[in-house]
Amino acid sequence: MELRGWARSVRTQKGMAFIDLNDGSAVSGMQAVVNEGSAAWETANSGSVSTGAALRVKGRLVASPGGKQAAELAVDELEVIGAADAETYPLQKKRHTLEYLRSIAHLRPRTNTIGAVARVRNQLAYATHKFFQENGFLYANTPIITASDCEGAGEQFQVTTLLNGFAAAAAATPEAVAAAEAAAKEQGEVVKAVKEAKKAGDASKEDVDSAVAKLLSLKAEAEALAGAAGSASLPKKDDGSIDYSQDFFGKPSYLTVSGQLNGEIMACAVNDIYTFGPTFRAENSNTSRHLAEFWMVEPELAFADLKDDMDCAEAYLKYCLNHVLENCDEDLAFFEKNVSKDNLRERLRSVATQEFARITYTEAVDYILNAKKKFEFPIEWGADLQSEHERYITEEVFKDRPVIVRDYPKDIKAFYMRLNDDNKTVAAMDVLVPRVGELMGGSQREERLDVLERRIEENGLEKESYWWYLDLRRYGSQPHAGFGLGFERLVCYVTGVENIRDAIPFPRYPGSAEF
Amino acid sequence: MELRGWARSVRTQKGMAFIDLNDGSAVSGMQAVVNEGSAAWETANSGSVSTGAALRVKGRLVASPGGKQAAELAVDELEVIGAADAETYPLQKKRHTLEYLRSIAHLRPRTNTIGAVARVRNQLAYATHKFFQENGFLYANTPIITASDCEGAGEQFQVTTLLNGFAAAAAATPEAVAAAEAAAKEQGEVVKAVKEAKKAGDASKEDVDSAVAKLLSLKAEAEALAGAAGSASLPKKDDGSIDYSQDFFGKPSYLTVSGQLNGEIMACAVNDIYTFGPTFRAENSNTSRHLAEFWMVEPELAFADLKDDMDCAEAYLKYCLNHVLENCDEDLAFFEKNVSKDNLRERLRSVATQEFARITYTEAVDYILNAKKKFEFPIEWGADLQSEHERYITEEVFKDRPVIVRDYPKDIKAFYMRLNDDNKTVAAMDVLVPRVGELMGGSQREERLDVLERRIEENGLEKESYWWYLDLRRYGSQPHAGFGLGFERLVCYVTGVENIRDAIPFPRYPGSAEF
Repeated sequence: MELRGWARSVRTQKGMAFIDLNDGSAVSGMQAVVNEGSAAWETANSGSVSTGAALRVKGRLVASPGGKQAAELAVDELEVIGAADAETYPLQKKRHTLEYLRSIAHLRPRTNTIGAVARVRNQLAYATHKFFQENGFLYANTPIITASDCEGAGEQFQVTTLLNGFAAAAAATPEAVAAAEAAAKEQGEVVKAVKEAKKAGDASKEDVDSAVAKLLSLKAEAEALAGAAGSASLPKKDDGSIDYSQDFFGKPSYLTVSGQLNGEIMACAVNDIYTFGPTFRAENSNTSRHLAEFWMVEPELAFADLKDDMDCAEAYLKYCLNHVLENCDEDLAFFEKNVSKDNLRERLRSVATQEFARITYTEAVDYILNAKKKFEFPIEWGADLQSEHERYITEEVFKDRPVIVRDYPKDIKAFYMRLNDDNKTVAAMDVLVPRVGELMGGSQREERLDVLERRIEENGLEKESYWWYLDLRRYGSQPHAGFGLGFERLVCYVTGVENIRDAIPFPRYPGSAEF
Repeated sequence: MELRGWARSVRTQKGMAFIDLNDGSAVSGMQAVVNEGSAAWETANSGSVSTGAALRVKGRLVASPGGKQAAELAVDELEVIGAADAETYPLQKKRHTLEYLRSIAHLRPRTNTIGAVARVRNQLAYATHKFFQENGFLYANTPIITASDCEGAGEQFQVTTLLNGFAAAAAATPEAVAAAEAAAKEQGEVVKAVKEAKKAGDASKEDVDSAVAKLLSLKAEAEALAGAAGSASLPKKDDGSIDYSQDFFGKPSYLTVSGQLNGEIMACAVNDIYTFGPTFRAENSNTSRHLAEFWMVEPELAFADLKDDMDCAEAYLKYCLNHVLENCDEDLAFFEKNVSKDNLRERLRSVATQEFARITYTEAVDYILNAKKKFEFPIEWGADLQSEHERYITEEVFKDRPVIVRDYPKDIKAFYMRLNDDNKTVAAMDVLVPRVGELMGGSQREERLDVLERRIEENGLEKESYWWYLDLRRYGSQPHAGFGLGFERLVCYVTGVENIRDAIPFPRYPGSAEF
């Protein structure tokens, strides 16, 4: 058999060279053994067969005398496809911290941990598509760039071509700056000259002549300066605000924070849909739980209420877990042993097989108020559940069982969630899992035009911005519901990896968009 | 049986109401028939059952007396879930132009054409995932935001938070402008005063005092003005260029134009991968073939050469076509009849079953030079093939057969494509299909460090920007290859839809990012 892959380690011992060859398809590689005297022996000892080298080996599969693997490859041919200088290769055999690995994101998928994350992530993505496709949902691509300001622009990245001219203008700017400095200096000199004239007690006609000339030239320079600065600056309207009619899309445009509103458009036309795409948050938070760029799965169910939504969320999560348990056992075993260091697979299996408990927010608050336990954050009806509360409910009240909490106070939830008959709560739900807390959140959407308009006003939003969203309630409105899953959160949950920056190949966070 | 959907049309005739009910899952809906005297009759004639209304109907499936459908629903119950005002509903029964429909993108997926596009697009996306997953490729999410300037920043959208302060600053700016105007006026008055003093022939001590005071206040105002302008303007460095250390990612950041370079990272670690995600082009081109935001499929094959790449591209395209032919027959029949108005399915089947011809660029040029036909654009070795040339080759030379052209002149292709031994051509390939021309393009990547460095220099690029890309050749380099497919181009090709803006639910192009 012939194999191509990279040497993870190479060692020589008693006339034999052992190469741990890995082609990236699994945590475990193939032990390739080169015997002294074989044709490959010289190559193996040429110095170019070292950790990181790309190799082609051809040989016979034989039973492995060691206990670590069932078989090994007795090498007949060995070719170095691409060497890796042992002195400088940044991924030596020793263990590296995940933090260091982030600084070499172009090499880190070659490590056991990040490679296994890539494989599990792939299976979770495929499970996502399979689940929704098998259940008749259409995959819909909602837009990434959006000029609709429905979503609270504060945390949004702006997308623009207005700064494109700046590189060219920057070249001209140093001259403008120099002119400004000269003008300022000159202005100082005029002031000084007139002051001296004053001190001297007489201001001669020549002094005044010269002052006037200088002031006039100063004025001209100030005007030129303003012109130059303008050319290397943003187009402005008369009121001083940026003139976005000159931007690519003719208005301020942002990166989407959610595909939901567009997803609703599709669900109001082609029935059940799901999105699976990148979303963005320009929050300046440097935590292990936030990314500036992350992938979201957002199904939207037509002719559906909150119960349908909860059923779908539960079935989807179970499908994903069963899929990785079936398809990623070796990788999960690796995470269990080296990352989570607990009964990872058992925990996942337990979530995949148990019926999720379902309680209301009000019941959840009662559980917390009646707990015999002290919490860092107090709770009262109307306040958001904290992570410690969510974990208490899943882990202690329900003994390590997933719990769906529904019917949250309207004041802590979004305007588009359907108002319940009590006028106090909305048809929202969060799926909580042991150890992690919230994994998914969703709601039935407000389908009644008058109620939605009132909720938009109550939330201090502008109805005009939502004209098309309101049209969905104006023409053929229907009860519909959906939820969102932060895909990297799911990857963290399934692998036990703690920092979300290790759950995506090229993480984006403040100060980091390299690679 | 019970159905929920939207009324596509409603007509009443001889004591019967006919409702064409469509739930978005197929072009054809269900004809629901309400008989006079039935409980539903009153509802059907209440005025709220009109085109666009969301309805629930319950009834019995009966043979249809008309020839148009096999069965229809004899309605027992009829409920209006959400009405659609017949006066104002923008999608009346009459045919609308695709151009008009783009202006109501929130309603257009309710039309036959755009609904069918959504379904075919969904199946093409699923086929993409199935094909690569079944062949062992990992789905890899390459980054959307990138600070690496590898890709020619001219056509890239910039992503920034530097303009976020402008909304607030804009409020302050009118004051700054007023101050500037006042200062300018005052400066004029100083000049005037000193001029008059000069005319009078004597400049009294008081005049000079007052001139100095005015100059000092003018200076203070100028400083304040500069401060105000600065707060509503971009942070600048001393040389006048924008200070990107204050931007979110600490450097200029852009929307990606391709996931390829990152895809290569993954293929150099976890073997074969594919991406399928949004890419962006800030080209100001208002054509039917360009979008500012579009989805790309980009596989990258490890330990692979150009032949492997061509084999993969051919197999992938055939898989997609067979998948839609099997799963979207009704929608394709609709497109055949109403959009392409030709033998659409036969054409697709022909591409799906024929072996693709494979020729070199040099052979292609010879075919064109020897053609008995006049072309608008002349060809000579070294020039890019035009669409008319590509169509001539697939349609006339090869009689409606797909053709893969390979080994293009290096000067018209990207620096990363592998240099052939002739030193004149690179291992690039384009897949051409009849009627459309190029559908996919790819190459074997240059895996030799020294050659790649030379090619970067020859192309006037900076080696330093490519440090991590070069590292892939420095450590365990291996021959690898890949290609890219513009997903909306494929949707257009399969459906016969001509304008790419109709191949994506929410198209982005100059001036358009609504919805």
